[in-house]
Amino acid sequence: MEVYLDNSATTRCLKEVVDVMVKAMELDYGNPSSMHMYGVKAERYIKEAKETFVKLLKCQEKEIIFTSGGTESNNMAILGAVMANKRDGNHIIVSSVEHSSVKQPIRFLEEQGFRISYLPVDKNGLISLDDLKNELCDDTIFVSTMYVNNEIGTVEPIEAMAQMIHNYNPDIIFHVDAIQAFGKYKIYPKKMGIDLLSVSGHKIHGPKGSGFLYIRDKVKVKPLILGGGQQKGMRSGTENVPGIAGLGVAAKLVYANLDEKIDHLYNLKEKLVEAIKIIPCATINGKTDRDFAPHILSVSFEGIRSEVLLHALEDKGVYVSSGSACASNKPGLSSTLVAIGVDKMLLDSTIRFSFCFDTTLEEIDYCILVLNELLPMLRKFRRS
Amino acid sequence: MEVYLDNSATTRCLKEVVDVMVKAMELDYGNPSSMHMYGVKAERYIKEAKETFVKLLKCQEKEIIFTSGGTESNNMAILGAVMANKRDGNHIIVSSVEHSSVKQPIRFLEEQGFRISYLPVDKNGLISLDDLKNELCDDTIFVSTMYVNNEIGTVEPIEAMAQMIHNYNPDIIFHVDAIQAFGKYKIYPKKMGIDLLSVSGHKIHGPKGSGFLYIRDKVKVKPLILGGGQQKGMRSGTENVPGIAGLGVAAKLVYANLDEKIDHLYNLKEKLVEAIKIIPCATINGKTDRDFAPHILSVSFEGIRSEVLLHALEDKGVYVSSGSACASNKPGLSSTLVAIGVDKMLLDSTIRFSFCFDTTLEEIDYCILVLNELLPMLRKFRRS
Repeated sequence: MEVYLDNSATTRCLKEVVDVMVKAMELDYGNPSSMHMYGVKAERYIKEAKETFVKLLKCQEKEIIFTSGGTESNNMAILGAVMANKRDGNHIIVSSVEHSSVKQPIRFLEEQGFRISYLPVDKNGLISLDDLKNELCDDTIFVSTMYVNNEIGTVEPIEAMAQMIHNYNPDIIFHVDAIQAFGKYKIYPKKMGIDLLSVSGHKIHGPKGSGFLYIRDKVKVKPLILGGGQQKGMRSGTENVPGIAGLGVAAKLVYANLDEKIDHLYNLKEKLVEAIKIIPCATINGKTDRDFAPHILSVSFEGIRSEVLLHALEDKGVYVSSGSACASNKPGLSSTLVAIGVDKMLLDSTIRFSFCFDTTLEEIDYCILVLNELLPMLRKFRRS
Repeated sequence: MEVYLDNSATTRCLKEVVDVMVKAMELDYGNPSSMHMYGVKAERYIKEAKETFVKLLKCQEKEIIFTSGGTESNNMAILGAVMANKRDGNHIIVSSVEHSSVKQPIRFLEEQGFRISYLPVDKNGLISLDDLKNELCDDTIFVSTMYVNNEIGTVEPIEAMAQMIHNYNPDIIFHVDAIQAFGKYKIYPKKMGIDLLSVSGHKIHGPKGSGFLYIRDKVKVKPLILGGGQQKGMRSGTENVPGIAGLGVAAKLVYANLDEKIDHLYNLKEKLVEAIKIIPCATINGKTDRDFAPHILSVSFEGIRSEVLLHALEDKGVYVSSGSACASNKPGLSSTLVAIGVDKMLLDSTIRFSFCFDTTLEEIDYCILVLNELLPMLRKFRRS
């Protein structure tokens, strides 16, 4: 049996996604900037994808800028918005559990002289609103947080944060990295007070190399990539028509009957949680209730190196990740696990299981079977 | 008959390109950063594409950085290299006929205080080496030029420029925008003295949203997009595996039997040239010999607005572009045509025909037939 439980790293493209991309590559392959019929047809794919996002986010067409993926979206949001608004202040607030694609641009800004406040999180990865309140000041221009933590599935209090930030100063720009949240939660940026929202295609069964940045109307952002003036000058370069079309189709399909799908994900997760709770020396990171994300489960297995368990599971056809696989495969400790205070001994013994809508209960049963078979064996050889 | 003669705007994806992409999306869909077999398999696609470019460019693996396309490659080359080397000087040299994806980042640097010299071109779009020589100075850190002009097909004297630049000062970085040249010319950056080379996938029957930047070993370039540290930190973000695989396959196929293909392109072009030479009031921009690029022909039709001719041709199934379609479809005069001194009256009366390897002599015959049918008719209604 093959059980792919690394869906937070990336997902399989849906058949419908591949189909529309093939059509855009072989048949309607024009350049959207061309004035003839091939150009018009190519532009129609972009228009259609935009309409999907307009409906899903309840936003305007012009608020969607297509990018090459989540990392570019986060870079554009952070660097573009801070550079466009630097005259208003010099202070940025960010959580201490961000993905590298947020952390690194923030670090770059720090080197440029911006002052950064890193919000701590509690043992479940949650930001405290009091901490946020204490950090907001007259100099604050930008706040960034992730919606769903990619390693342990914490859901941050986005709406309450937005309200607090904008009550303090409506001009502060609030960026949300929704890369692990989009496709799992209904997100309405305007209603929720989100100014910038980053989304990636390949986390929702869409193509790699696709994504978008939602930019609330009137929020000033400088483009990161300059050139021919495509996308109203906000992101130059011939639009990746197949990628955009695939992204649109993926989003549309993922959001159909979302509630049922989410219920299914929680059922999968809860089944695995029940089994893990009775495994000796296994600790679940974060909470297991439905306030947490439905598709991510982080577990530390005391005394077993995550790499060893990962490959042992792989031998049995179960594919998971150690800590966060989203960064490059360099070794390095997970900053989320450190931030939530996971015991040093367990940092290197943590596995992330992540599900998708197609994951079945039988696959979870198999995963449990394999875990129960492997763990006692691996423990025999545990480090002293 | 349908005749697509807008291949400099974009090309149809090859079947083999689509096939490998479908496989990477449906079967080997892992994240290259994942440590299990799905990750390893995904990484293999990247490795294979790299090996293709290593052979084609006679370069090293580490010198290839995959990007989201030509525009990102140009942005990264210009902004990344200038920012990484700004301590060495403040002066940049660039031709006056560059594509917007070069022109705009250069303009951005100008706003940041860099001094820019714009090299003029002659009536054929050629840069003069004397002009280059006169501009080089102790403060020069960066020179950028296109290899093949996207509007009229001029081939710039790349090797002679490289030699002059590096004889003057080996530390000056020489960037070549090869977006219209790659796939038509054999390019060996090291031998030719090119430090940075930008390439786009969708101009060579590869996918939109793909491209690469060649960075010669030891040339310092700062990354444009920061994050998880993929591609040795030079371009973060989960690699667009299907896009990279498609790009590699496209390049491999395009370079097979290149000489024959190029000969075919020249035959197509020469056939069209012969026919146009006897059309009254038609002027070919640039030269028609084989020193010019094989796939681009720019023609001004006095008294007929290019948009009108473009749509009249479209009605007959012939798809061309007016001036340069590579920029966004905003109206605006072509800077190349202005730079080569095209009569004001003709600027708005220029059509670009661009061929691909699959274009047939029959298609060119049909295009000539249609032109000879349409032009006398359109001239009746010409502007006074």
